Amino acid sequence: MIGSVEDLLARESIRHTIASYNFAGDSGRIGELAETFTPDGVLELRRADDPDNVDRAVGRSAIVEMLEAFVATGSTQRNTVPGAARYVRHFVTGTHITLGPDHAQAASYFAVLTGHGLDHWGRYRDVLVPFEGQWLLAERSVRVDRQDG
Amino acid sequence: MIGSVEDLLARESIRHTIASYNFAGDSGRIGELAETFTPDGVLELRRADDPDNVDRAVGRSAIVEMLEAFVATGSTQRNTVPGAARYVRHFVTGTHITLGPDHAQAASYFAVLTGHGLDHWGRYRDVLVPFEGQWLLAERSVRVDRQDG
Amino acid sequence: MIGSVEDLLARESIRHTIASYNFAGDSGRIGELAETFTPDGVLELRRADDPDNVDRAVGRSAIVEMLEAFVATGSTQRNTVPGAARYVRHFVTGTHITLGPDHAQAASYFAVLTGHGLDHWGRYRDVLVPFEGQWLLAERSVRVDRQDG
Repeated sequence: MIGSVEDLLARESIRHTIASYNFAGDSGRIGELAETFTPDGVLELRRADDPDNVDRAVGRSAIVEMLEAFVATGSTQRNTVPGAARYVRHFVTGTHITLGPDHAQAASYFAVLTGHGLDHWGRYRDVLVPFEGQWLLAERSVRVDRQDG
Repeated sequence: MIGSVEDLLARESIRHTIASYNFAGDSGRIGELAETFTPDGVLELRRADDPDNVDRAVGRSAIVEMLEAFVATGSTQRNTVPGAARYVRHFVTGTHITLGPDHAQAASYFAVLTGHGLDHWGRYRDVLVPFEGQWLLAERSVRVDRQDG
Repeated sequence: MIGSVEDLLARESIRHTIASYNFAGDSGRIGELAETFTPDGVLELRRADDPDNVDRAVGRSAIVEMLEAFVATGSTQRNTVPGAARYVRHFVTGTHITLGPDHAQAASYFAVLTGHGLDHWGRYRDVLVPFEGQWLLAERSVRVDRQDG
């Protein structure tokens, strides 16, 4: 039940943090993306077709390092597609928030459009906690369902 | 105009109910999906290419029954596509809410990604009412614009 | 930081204005779409592959005129695709809002599905201001990344 201003503030802050992650990341501002995590936040990435192979980073600088490596690989692939623009746009929807007293769970879907169309998609599973007036990601687990091309 | 905390609570509750419908349904928890409706809620499904053929269920148990039949048919089709994962992910966006004193109207788009890509899409037209501290679906009309494959 | 009821009211009003733009536009109610702008609001359209060619309208009636011309052209194209339904559905996601005391910035992605599938996509960059109890578009800059077909 959503019954108080505190609930609304928490939910809007969570929604804003989730939007900020891709708003920064899609523009290549990986340091800013990392600030959507708590200082000791955890990011996990796995692919549905290879679920035992989990990339995991703990802390903001490890997250930056992991994503920069990931983006570098992705860009290389993308640049081999003639005429493909190098942008990525994460379409994030369906955010479902379960709010507890000291943490929240959120689940969202993402689909990524690039210069060659629908590129990959999957889901985020998040744990968020209050941190210095915001709700930040304590954990984000990314599962990529599929990658085309 | 959105002018009060009551408006905000109603809108956030409506958004949460709409998210909960697919959050439950995409995981196969049809009973939980049905609880996003009032006990006498109505679900209607129609296809744009066959608008006279309307499936209609009244009440939660009838909704469960209708959707279980629908999912069973869909899964059979999907399983004929080699290598296709059996997940469905409803990407719901554009929710437009018109709030009245005792009911609300909401309109949203959905697009469904499965293991073989963009599968079908369409729109929801909803009527929601306050019910035991939440805003639940009194009516949801689903129109499927197109189904690929 | 999102810290007050005023922040929440502004953000929800902004989200509602952004939803109303496409809710009206996708149904062909261009006059209603124009009312999501302030009376002297500005709409700019540009394509990623032709960034120097900017269409720009200032004021609601100029916006109506520009969009009616745009829709007329688009419909002609669409009607040449046999069997294609004439609807357009803008899937808008990822809205990131930065709220200042007297104006706000918002950035969103859009992807358009029509009767022949994923048609085009891009992004909105908006400036919104308070106007008669709502937050309306003072400027919307539309960039179309790509158009298929």
